[in-house]
Amino acid sequence: MVAELISVGTELLMGQILDTNAQYLSRQLSDMGIRVLYKSTIGDNPQRMKEAFSQALSRSDLVITTGGLGPTPDDITKEMWAEMMGLPLYEDAACMERLEARFQTFHPGKPMASINRKQAFMPQGAIVMPNPNGTAPGCIIDKDGKIVVIMPGPPFEMKPMFENHAKPFLYSKCDDMLVSHFVRILGMGESDVAATLQDLIDGQANPTIATYISTTDVQVRITAKCKRGEDAQAILEPMEKEVLRRLGDYVYEVGEEALEDVVARMLIERGATLSIAESCTGGWLTSALVAYSGASRFLQEGLVTYSNAAKSRHLQIDASLIETHGAVSYEVAQAMAVHSRTISGADYGLSVTGIAGPTGGTDEKPVGTVYIGVADEHGVQVEHFKFSSDRSRNRQRAVTNALNLLRLRILANDKLQGIPQK
Amino acid sequence: MVAELISVGTELLMGQILDTNAQYLSRQLSDMGIRVLYKSTIGDNPQRMKEAFSQALSRSDLVITTGGLGPTPDDITKEMWAEMMGLPLYEDAACMERLEARFQTFHPGKPMASINRKQAFMPQGAIVMPNPNGTAPGCIIDKDGKIVVIMPGPPFEMKPMFENHAKPFLYSKCDDMLVSHFVRILGMGESDVAATLQDLIDGQANPTIATYISTTDVQVRITAKCKRGEDAQAILEPMEKEVLRRLGDYVYEVGEEALEDVVARMLIERGATLSIAESCTGGWLTSALVAYSGASRFLQEGLVTYSNAAKSRHLQIDASLIETHGAVSYEVAQAMAVHSRTISGADYGLSVTGIAGPTGGTDEKPVGTVYIGVADEHGVQVEHFKFSSDRSRNRQRAVTNALNLLRLRILANDKLQGIPQK
Repeated sequence: MVAELISVGTELLMGQILDTNAQYLSRQLSDMGIRVLYKSTIGDNPQRMKEAFSQALSRSDLVITTGGLGPTPDDITKEMWAEMMGLPLYEDAACMERLEARFQTFHPGKPMASINRKQAFMPQGAIVMPNPNGTAPGCIIDKDGKIVVIMPGPPFEMKPMFENHAKPFLYSKCDDMLVSHFVRILGMGESDVAATLQDLIDGQANPTIATYISTTDVQVRITAKCKRGEDAQAILEPMEKEVLRRLGDYVYEVGEEALEDVVARMLIERGATLSIAESCTGGWLTSALVAYSGASRFLQEGLVTYSNAAKSRHLQIDASLIETHGAVSYEVAQAMAVHSRTISGADYGLSVTGIAGPTGGTDEKPVGTVYIGVADEHGVQVEHFKFSSDRSRNRQRAVTNALNLLRLRILANDKLQGIPQK
Repeated sequence: MVAELISVGTELLMGQILDTNAQYLSRQLSDMGIRVLYKSTIGDNPQRMKEAFSQALSRSDLVITTGGLGPTPDDITKEMWAEMMGLPLYEDAACMERLEARFQTFHPGKPMASINRKQAFMPQGAIVMPNPNGTAPGCIIDKDGKIVVIMPGPPFEMKPMFENHAKPFLYSKCDDMLVSHFVRILGMGESDVAATLQDLIDGQANPTIATYISTTDVQVRITAKCKRGEDAQAILEPMEKEVLRRLGDYVYEVGEEALEDVVARMLIERGATLSIAESCTGGWLTSALVAYSGASRFLQEGLVTYSNAAKSRHLQIDASLIETHGAVSYEVAQAMAVHSRTISGADYGLSVTGIAGPTGGTDEKPVGTVYIGVADEHGVQVEHFKFSSDRSRNRQRAVTNALNLLRLRILANDKLQGIPQK
């Protein structure tokens, strides 16, 4: 199946909005084994829209458009498709009901302007995709051997609609499909991951297996090829289990959850509390965890002790310790983690001190030198890292590695307490 | 002049990379008055590339491609364009010299692999655009009434190349061009900005003037239309001066510098120091300022006093104050700013306390309630905000407003000290 993506909207052509939908859909379709050969963007112009739709139908089996489903007269994506596919628009009663209910929720007691009713009109015979996150429903047209998927432009409306409606439909239409799981790894390089899985990679058939590297982690993609109706999970499971068994605690996630959310959830599930003392990351580490709704359940405090005086003042770190070893040192990272924990009474103390760059490096401690410490009731562990990137990426890598060190420490404590591992 | 953008790269079609080049170029061209009517993405496939290039030439005056200039055999953008435009490739001596010099810098003493030499070949008659940030030079083909601009894919290579070479070339080719300046405003809503400038907007001719709203600020675009060789600055200046005069301190920037960098620079220029106490922003505020290289010159400390105990421990805030008024209150924001300043001995103390959501709101203090305080030697000022968005955007708006409150306080102190305003 050859697919084509068309993003509709003059604001995209003007560069006012960054199009992230096309990347999301490209990735989703690629992971499903559907080849995306063309992506394009067009404005809200009837003539150019028709040309683009017609060209897409002539060369692709599946065309997905996002955008142009709003209530205003320049939103004409659905109307253009209906005309092109020879399907008259009808007023869909269920859509109208949802539209009016949604309007009443946000504007109680007010009458809905008639302009809005247009969003409840659908091409005859299309499969309607409801939109719980906005006013514009989407639809799927399946006609004359071509599939057209029409979805709204806002990503938080489009993504759930694709996931819940378009994706299952596409799976049902394809004889052969791919289903992929991503195993996400931290603390082990790509080549070590590949070496650990070498015989699985060499002997792969179905599922296939491959390693990838991203800016923050290493990923193993496990992909099952299956016929319609076949159970992908059953094909994936034995390989996934073996990969997880071999990589052990280096795996922080199977799926899409971000590391900071994984760690936040682990703390909450265990009823554990945390205090943070950071220097070069400057609040980024704490802020990443605070992004998790419910952070107050575990976070006591985050101290950005940027100056040496602040380290002494809030963390009771001896000026002489800093003088002897330097603010960026094993000893200071250790003291920051331990004191952060004891001063606040938290279960865990996490510390970062380093040289983010571009200035401040020395021969002995070049830019990218970072010490990360984690303290708990059993003691303190400090790791030394040497990153070699720009200020922003050095800080990001320090945040990632600090979160991962804490994650590993929590897992180690689970083992000590005899909590069974997943 | 009608323009078309083509991003080349199979990794873009697969969704492995988010295409930010197309947005950047769309915006640049729109600001220059060049209409972008088509954007598309194609893989590294000769047949589909030829089709796309040929279609683009048939309907557009200017075609800009990014990507596909690497050293490997699947990088064929330049080769395809040369063939399509009937221009043989030649080995460009200056390009080869730069390529070899660059290789020697990164791999001293090693011979350059012959595969790399391909990057120094250029279409006959093309204008070469050197690439100080990478190995692949770009070029401009100006032939038969069509302009083709060929640039590498990595944004940090493409953007300076466009800015320094392609943009001036395009200006030189157009009889009428637009040159825009953006005046960026905080603390005043779009409608108030428009009202303040109403007579200028009503009476606009050349330059034109319009207001925009972004996620974080309000912008006034001033655009001069000028003939080739005309001085755009001379057309823009009187209007820009008048806009700046009317909006005064609400303007934080004319151009592209981020608010946190503006504030960091202001502090450094004045030799002033800062301490921060934040709650709902959770380190984001401090982290934004630490992103500025040289933050150690002004930042004393940032305290993420998330729990009430932390507020008492590090900021010496009376438990009774929190009990009486609540952690999210005018009084606590005030105390956080004042104590943050006095405890650290900084010139400024900046505080944020609020309810980011989605939970934790009450009828009296709903989600989005935020108090921001700034203290200096003259006293303390607290502002009350009511945002109404999701957790992430409420936190972002709190960060933006805190930075802006500090900026305005610094400007007020400049005036007190008789420092002339810009």
